[in-house]
Amino acid sequence: MAEKPSVLRETDDEARKLARILLRSARSAALAVIEPASNGFPFVSRVLLGIDTDGSPVILVSALSTHTQALSADSRCSLLSGEVGKGDPLAHPRLTVQCEAEKIERGGAAHARIRTRFLRRHPKSELYIDFPDFTFFRLQPVKASLNGGFGRAYALDGKDLLIHSSAIDDLAAMEERAIEHMNSDHPDAASRYAQVYCKAEGTDWRICGLDAAGADLASGDQLRRLEYDAPLQSAGELRMMLVKLYG
Amino acid sequence: MAEKPSVLRETDDEARKLARILLRSARSAALAVIEPASNGFPFVSRVLLGIDTDGSPVILVSALSTHTQALSADSRCSLLSGEVGKGDPLAHPRLTVQCEAEKIERGGAAHARIRTRFLRRHPKSELYIDFPDFTFFRLQPVKASLNGGFGRAYALDGKDLLIHSSAIDDLAAMEERAIEHMNSDHPDAASRYAQVYCKAEGTDWRICGLDAAGADLASGDQLRRLEYDAPLQSAGELRMMLVKLYG
Repeated sequence: MAEKPSVLRETDDEARKLARILLRSARSAALAVIEPASNGFPFVSRVLLGIDTDGSPVILVSALSTHTQALSADSRCSLLSGEVGKGDPLAHPRLTVQCEAEKIERGGAAHARIRTRFLRRHPKSELYIDFPDFTFFRLQPVKASLNGGFGRAYALDGKDLLIHSSAIDDLAAMEERAIEHMNSDHPDAASRYAQVYCKAEGTDWRICGLDAAGADLASGDQLRRLEYDAPLQSAGELRMMLVKLYG
Repeated sequence: MAEKPSVLRETDDEARKLARILLRSARSAALAVIEPASNGFPFVSRVLLGIDTDGSPVILVSALSTHTQALSADSRCSLLSGEVGKGDPLAHPRLTVQCEAEKIERGGAAHARIRTRFLRRHPKSELYIDFPDFTFFRLQPVKASLNGGFGRAYALDGKDLLIHSSAIDDLAAMEERAIEHMNSDHPDAASRYAQVYCKAEGTDWRICGLDAAGADLASGDQLRRLEYDAPLQSAGELRMMLVKLYG
């Protein structure tokens, strides 16, 4: 049997965008690791998901858990994102990403950045995010497999899921301020974005993330991703983009 | 670090029952396998789940898929079941089961039995269940990990998830007839079971499985498991159990 069976479709920009949205709008995901204690048995469990400013998924895990012990011994892992909705569970799009996990040490700039973004996305994680046994891992995508529903399978590279922009750091530096400004001074913008671009309902949406490739929108338990058509290449483009999308 | 950290609780019958219900009421699950083509990288994807008469989970998969190719090379796999509901995704109970996968050859009694039960649980799979590239695997539970919510972790043996009864085969032989009788002649029974024992709503429930340890109940997209307090030990006990539960 061929390793890339002919059922795979040609990977196009639409598939890449769907894959990014499935990853970046997921609150939780299934994480598969290789368990060292059982001679390499796979082990899959549920984790909360965050996204770093370069698009890498991040997870917050307890050192007491099987997945953390496994990742410390073998950094290879796989995430499944995409929710099961009404009807046939296999008719809903989902994304498998295979990643290399990298532990984020406390005290560094990466930890502070990831912690802040994670808290905005998962406010209730405040209860345990600073517990000494909790650690962030950044999961560097190696390759991915998108299943857009029956007969709609695509293979992706890891880099298809990363954000390629020279403005990542500049935008990260202004992210918190920009979010506060939007949510305070333009409180209807997030709901408009969610309704127009994410097929969401309701009027209590807020922005919980802004990066070079798009905006994260939250309302209660719901999370949506507004993915721009192309990443911003300078921080100065952010304001115009948000105005343009407001319409 | 100890392999069994002290956060694990003593596994009791209540935990075992919750674990069985999480597995047996799942329509779909995340399946983690070890991908041979990438030198043993874990790979997690979504599968439809069925249950054999001895409680073993079964999956129906396409030979073209990564997970099927992986299982054919290394039978070790892991399932994650338990749905994410409102609020914090990690507050909802979920079950990780590590299994050895066994391919079910067409033409045998096991295939016919598994196919019939799977079709009743997933009527829409009729569209592809007999495609030549689709295969059933029975997943023999080796061990499991129940997470009942924050701080409620339990380790289980594989046998905790299997049905131990001398009546399995006799009940399997009469299952289809008993289901037809119940759904035709006592059409309100399934809804009553779902409401009283499974905290479900609605009045259009039907029985879609009857085994020595309980009943599977379906309504549209919903699936619930009524797990008896103890397995039936003779097929003759089924009628009395269903009458008693009806109240």
